[in-house]
Amino acid sequence: MHRERIRHAGLLEKIVSAEEAASHIRNGMTVGMSGFTRAGEAKAVPLALAARARTEPLKITLITGASLGNDLDKQLAEAHVLSRRIPFQSDPALRKAINAGEVMFIDQHLSETVEQLRTRQIGPVDVAVIEAVAITEQGGIIPTTSVGNSASFAILAEKVIVEINTSQPLLLEGLHDIYIPTRRPVRHPIPIVAPENRVGLPFIPIDPAKIAAIVVTSKLDSSSTVLPPDEDTRAIAGHLTDLLRHEVKLGRLTTTLQPLQAGIGSIANAVMHGLIDSPFHNLTMYSEVLQDSTFDLFDAGKLDFASGSSITLSQAKYQAVLPDFARYKQRLVLRPQEISNHPEIIRRLGVIAVNTALEFDLYGNVNSTHVGGTHMMNGIGGSGDFARNAYLSVFVTKSIAKNGAISSVVPMVSHVDHTEHDVDILITEQGLADLRGLAPRERARLVIANCVHPLYRDALNDYYERALARAGHTPHLIEEALGWHAALRERGTMLPG
Amino acid sequence: MHRERIRHAGLLEKIVSAEEAASHIRNGMTVGMSGFTRAGEAKAVPLALAARARTEPLKITLITGASLGNDLDKQLAEAHVLSRRIPFQSDPALRKAINAGEVMFIDQHLSETVEQLRTRQIGPVDVAVIEAVAITEQGGIIPTTSVGNSASFAILAEKVIVEINTSQPLLLEGLHDIYIPTRRPVRHPIPIVAPENRVGLPFIPIDPAKIAAIVVTSKLDSSSTVLPPDEDTRAIAGHLTDLLRHEVKLGRLTTTLQPLQAGIGSIANAVMHGLIDSPFHNLTMYSEVLQDSTFDLFDAGKLDFASGSSITLSQAKYQAVLPDFARYKQRLVLRPQEISNHPEIIRRLGVIAVNTALEFDLYGNVNSTHVGGTHMMNGIGGSGDFARNAYLSVFVTKSIAKNGAISSVVPMVSHVDHTEHDVDILITEQGLADLRGLAPRERARLVIANCVHPLYRDALNDYYERALARAGHTPHLIEEALGWHAALRERGTMLPG
Repeated sequence: MHRERIRHAGLLEKIVSAEEAASHIRNGMTVGMSGFTRAGEAKAVPLALAARARTEPLKITLITGASLGNDLDKQLAEAHVLSRRIPFQSDPALRKAINAGEVMFIDQHLSETVEQLRTRQIGPVDVAVIEAVAITEQGGIIPTTSVGNSASFAILAEKVIVEINTSQPLLLEGLHDIYIPTRRPVRHPIPIVAPENRVGLPFIPIDPAKIAAIVVTSKLDSSSTVLPPDEDTRAIAGHLTDLLRHEVKLGRLTTTLQPLQAGIGSIANAVMHGLIDSPFHNLTMYSEVLQDSTFDLFDAGKLDFASGSSITLSQAKYQAVLPDFARYKQRLVLRPQEISNHPEIIRRLGVIAVNTALEFDLYGNVNSTHVGGTHMMNGIGGSGDFARNAYLSVFVTKSIAKNGAISSVVPMVSHVDHTEHDVDILITEQGLADLRGLAPRERARLVIANCVHPLYRDALNDYYERALARAGHTPHLIEEALGWHAALRERGTMLPG
Repeated sequence: MHRERIRHAGLLEKIVSAEEAASHIRNGMTVGMSGFTRAGEAKAVPLALAARARTEPLKITLITGASLGNDLDKQLAEAHVLSRRIPFQSDPALRKAINAGEVMFIDQHLSETVEQLRTRQIGPVDVAVIEAVAITEQGGIIPTTSVGNSASFAILAEKVIVEINTSQPLLLEGLHDIYIPTRRPVRHPIPIVAPENRVGLPFIPIDPAKIAAIVVTSKLDSSSTVLPPDEDTRAIAGHLTDLLRHEVKLGRLTTTLQPLQAGIGSIANAVMHGLIDSPFHNLTMYSEVLQDSTFDLFDAGKLDFASGSSITLSQAKYQAVLPDFARYKQRLVLRPQEISNHPEIIRRLGVIAVNTALEFDLYGNVNSTHVGGTHMMNGIGGSGDFARNAYLSVFVTKSIAKNGAISSVVPMVSHVDHTEHDVDILITEQGLADLRGLAPRERARLVIANCVHPLYRDALNDYYERALARAGHTPHLIEEALGWHAALRERGTMLPG
């Protein structure tokens, strides 16, 4: 039994229950688990940990690729297993625990976590728990729908637990490209010069003696919760397509554009979807999460190749893609997030990066993480890796939220994740502001004219005019700059009273 | 005459007066000039422009490497020649014009300007004005004490004006390494894997037919205005050295450390100077400006090699170094700032980056540019290129300024140049906060305990405790977060009234 999936003969005897596997994880340990944007997470061992925490003290530092599916972050948070969580999450229950100060959350650029682990600035990882399609004859681990940080976790950890998920098709074998940068003092250039380049191994190479336990599971990944395009997201997609057409007309881009990245979520997904009805063709993606829109673009004949770190699909898209997966596979590669998000590659390829803002300000600073400047939503994720190093760094958001009680375009953002130095283009359903080559005062005029919702235009303009009267490279009324956020907190709306 | 310096026979006839050379620059043009941190700037043509602007309308966009010496930014600003200035400056008169909105200043990461020029997102450059030691037989331009953006300006510009500076010794020939990344769609990895690697040419290769004029000058670079170490900067240097010793003890670093970068200015210079009396040895630098401390470290036998984009020395150090320059030259290389500051190389080498903050906050956000959140000081320079990609990103500042009227440690910075995601270590003369692996609430406790000046400790702690009572991942009293800055503006001090 399981010989097709556990091909290293000596490892068959390592098959145990989830509870027994979880017993390798003890109170106070640092655990690295697979999982990136609800794809390919270890599913059985974390549940066993949550159960065990009901009867004994159990607190761990949990490091993953990114967010987990199957409500695992919720269950771990509610069982109070998490003392520290790195580097991203998107679960309401965990978010609540983080904002209450019960879980220490370290919100990191997704490319950087394993750099810190490798150099022992954080960690060490005691146990890695990795979901796999199979284990090779040599003991190599073949990941499932995400790579995330799994390769480095397995390589760096003292012990490795593998969850063989029989629901993940063997067809996934060959999808992954596992490349780990060489160690300093002499680290070599990463030899990727195009999204389709394969430069590593199709499995995670580890000493099989480190595999302490194997658990066999069959639970599916959670479906993505991406909403279909609506009028506003279609307008945002239209503004972006218009910009790209204009860039082609100016000779700055060709009709094949440059490799595309899209952040997670409904808006970025809708923006990518908008490229189906565009004049662009033979597109490529160098991104992190491959969502429904990636496969829509394949099906529309628009996309030649997509590189990512995970595949996260809606249920309908998953059911459509799976029977045909062999056809897609040759045009896909999944890489460690250190590589999918690596500054070196993003800058070299000249990626066009589209990420979602919570709010942005008059001068192009972007908040991606903190509601009201204080409360964590999900984390910065890979947006900073891409925005800083992209050829074109685009941020998108709807101009208002909560039926107009919140303006996403504010005098000053209440938390900065992306500075004015890293943002080229701002888009709302109202329009687009192209900030390239502009000084702050010029940017402010464009943002007021093109991006802010009419409900807030006069108020924003009034703020700016009064700030301008005080002068400065970046005019502000420092005592009022966060007044809209204070009003939201006190009165429940940013609208002038 | 000048055959030793103008070796391409056909170019001798291009020697003209500065006024005649400047006549190639017309109203409305974009001009790229050499010059990086007061080193190697074109000296005659900008003065001729300033003079001409007295009698005719003349406005240009001026792009340089970084700041100019010899009061050139002052003279150009006072003659109202500058409509737009990119990407850095440090002149009080120009600063005044920028803050008054008379000059549109685009404050950029220093590695990124030529990326935008090359892809025509800004520009095009009509005329390049480059200071040179000599022109080779093939028409190659040999830069002087800085490379900055000179190579790309000369390559991209329609016309090139060369200023042959006879005060710059011919010995500088061979110091430079001019490497330009290949063009997309296939850009190759930059083959630098150690600070001492030479991967390009010792001159800027251009078609000599583009050289429209040559001006012969002899004005020296301005001396640097770096202040000698004082008690506070010595304390800061001591805290950093202690940290590095501790890293060695933990096995994270060896006693040769990793390549060092230091930002411009007295504090960073003093910190580097502090390494003279340390147990570290066989050090290397991969930095942008090489200041007095670089040569002090060479002389102390501590430093093996230094890579930069410019050399900016005090008068005394210049006079000491110059006679012996042949001895230093083999241990030095000057690169285009795109390469000295390239994310790809900084990340690959694992640079230890030390930069100066104007202010930082409870959570590790850093303001490097804006006084009071509104008024530009100098610009972000290369600090973002280094801080984001470094192995260890350190920011230093004295804990108070203006005799205590200003605290450099505040509840919330009034402008963000480096986000909490990019800052590892904060140091003031009071002490050091190691933020690695810590959540915002943990960082706040450390910053209060170790970094803030005693004059402000109670007030900062009071703010934090009251913010904490409201909860949140990053606790703030949003209506009070910039209150210290508002108080400074209204009452001239941040000290509680």
